[in-house]
Amino acid sequence: MGKIACANVLSDLYAMGVANCDNMLMIVGIPFKMTDLERDVVVAQMMKGFRDEAAAGGTEVTGGDTNFSEWCLVGGTATAVVKSEEVVLPYNAEVGDVLVLTKPLGTQNATFAYQWYQEGGEKWEKLSSVITAEEVQYAYFMAVQSMTRLNRTGASLMRRHHAHGATDITGFGLLGHANNLAKHQKQPVSFIINKLPIMCGMAAVERAINNRFMLLSGRGIETSGGLLIAMPKEESSQFCRSIKEIDGVEAWIIGHVVEGDRTASLDQDIEIIDVR
Amino acid sequence: MGKIACANVLSDLYAMGVANCDNMLMIVGIPFKMTDLERDVVVAQMMKGFRDEAAAGGTEVTGGDTNFSEWCLVGGTATAVVKSEEVVLPYNAEVGDVLVLTKPLGTQNATFAYQWYQEGGEKWEKLSSVITAEEVQYAYFMAVQSMTRLNRTGASLMRRHHAHGATDITGFGLLGHANNLAKHQKQPVSFIINKLPIMCGMAAVERAINNRFMLLSGRGIETSGGLLIAMPKEESSQFCRSIKEIDGVEAWIIGHVVEGDRTASLDQDIEIIDVR
Repeated sequence: MGKIACANVLSDLYAMGVANCDNMLMIVGIPFKMTDLERDVVVAQMMKGFRDEAAAGGTEVTGGDTNFSEWCLVGGTATAVVKSEEVVLPYNAEVGDVLVLTKPLGTQNATFAYQWYQEGGEKWEKLSSVITAEEVQYAYFMAVQSMTRLNRTGASLMRRHHAHGATDITGFGLLGHANNLAKHQKQPVSFIINKLPIMCGMAAVERAINNRFMLLSGRGIETSGGLLIAMPKEESSQFCRSIKEIDGVEAWIIGHVVEGDRTASLDQDIEIIDVR
Repeated sequence: MGKIACANVLSDLYAMGVANCDNMLMIVGIPFKMTDLERDVVVAQMMKGFRDEAAAGGTEVTGGDTNFSEWCLVGGTATAVVKSEEVVLPYNAEVGDVLVLTKPLGTQNATFAYQWYQEGGEKWEKLSSVITAEEVQYAYFMAVQSMTRLNRTGASLMRRHHAHGATDITGFGLLGHANNLAKHQKQPVSFIINKLPIMCGMAAVERAINNRFMLLSGRGIETSGGLLIAMPKEESSQFCRSIKEIDGVEAWIIGHVVEGDRTASLDQDIEIIDVR
């Protein structure tokens, strides 16, 4: 949880192509209801995870705030001071650019499916006709790996490959963030998304629960999701290859930039990629 | 509430003598239980208060995070990038320095006393033998004024008057923060506090509730409290006069720096100043 929160906080810098964070603050809320033992173990581990992830990102937590809370909370802020030419400004997408996504979708489905599998009740019974226990475990593992993975490699590479704008995918889902990015473009362009890379089996899970999480309409909530980047088409293949070489994971060309009214939409013939 | 939170956040910069904040982020938690109307009015007002206070501090809120929460929450972070010579480093206190405090103590007593007065029950009956309704209202007014007042004037002036170190007084009370500041001194010094400036009638309230908030032992929790500053004695009178001229409020010389083992303590003959 600490690692995921830290990756999520740093992601805001990475979405601007800023790969080096100067300073982090950590905010922790400790539940009243925790016993002393739980607090000493769980909160300490959570804070360690946050600090470890910061270290993995080449930065350090120098302060913050800890308080009691109804819920267990962890979050923070990341700060970097950079020259303006070191920032990828988010509003320069051009007609002919492609859209690249650096993490698969479906963190919400994967975490809920795993929870239902563990509980073993009625919900899991419903899912077990479309997905095996092994697939759920694998998807959950993939989701945790994905959520804790920093977008730092993407941040460095997108500067090198002359990206024209980027955002990170979190609470508003792919389409929500794509729309927000489109809205701020200088050129009158729109984003068309024609592929949805979705974690192992989670498209089937989504159908089995009647599209409850809106994953297939591009609205699924992601936690610490990937970067969505508009970049020149001729740079994109090498970008994806480099991500694969450095981080060992796929990145996908999921759409393109056309003339338009600064909106984002899914193509009618959307292709679902089952990511294994 | 928004104004107080913002003043409290900025105070961390001001305690370093940094009077100009480059950027603020605001964090808001909206209670599930709020109705739409309450949310539209209360949360909007709270956020406006935070933004207005930031503007009063010559800075701006450029982002942050809003989420649902069990509690109504507001907080944030303040960032400034400055040259090292623009910072008052907190560890240069010298024997012979005096300690200056820029806000009176007793915010916790004032807010609780006012609440008890409004409720009018048994607790207020107990208090009404030591304090009048008018005094409680006045102390509450003074507390709100004090909590929303920025420590910015103190920040500018303490640089001009060659302060040797400072902290702001919040959750650990005067003595807690004084101890923390003392602990980090380069020289083997200690802080002796011989005056406690306390808001109108709140010392009497504290005695009436059997020292429940530890105000008279220097441990009372403060919200958005003042700066505690170690500075050369010959600078201190002019410093206090300038605070009075600019902000229209008192600052007090409440103690001095002696040879010691990097601790802070209250003088045995502590003087209570009843601030009106």
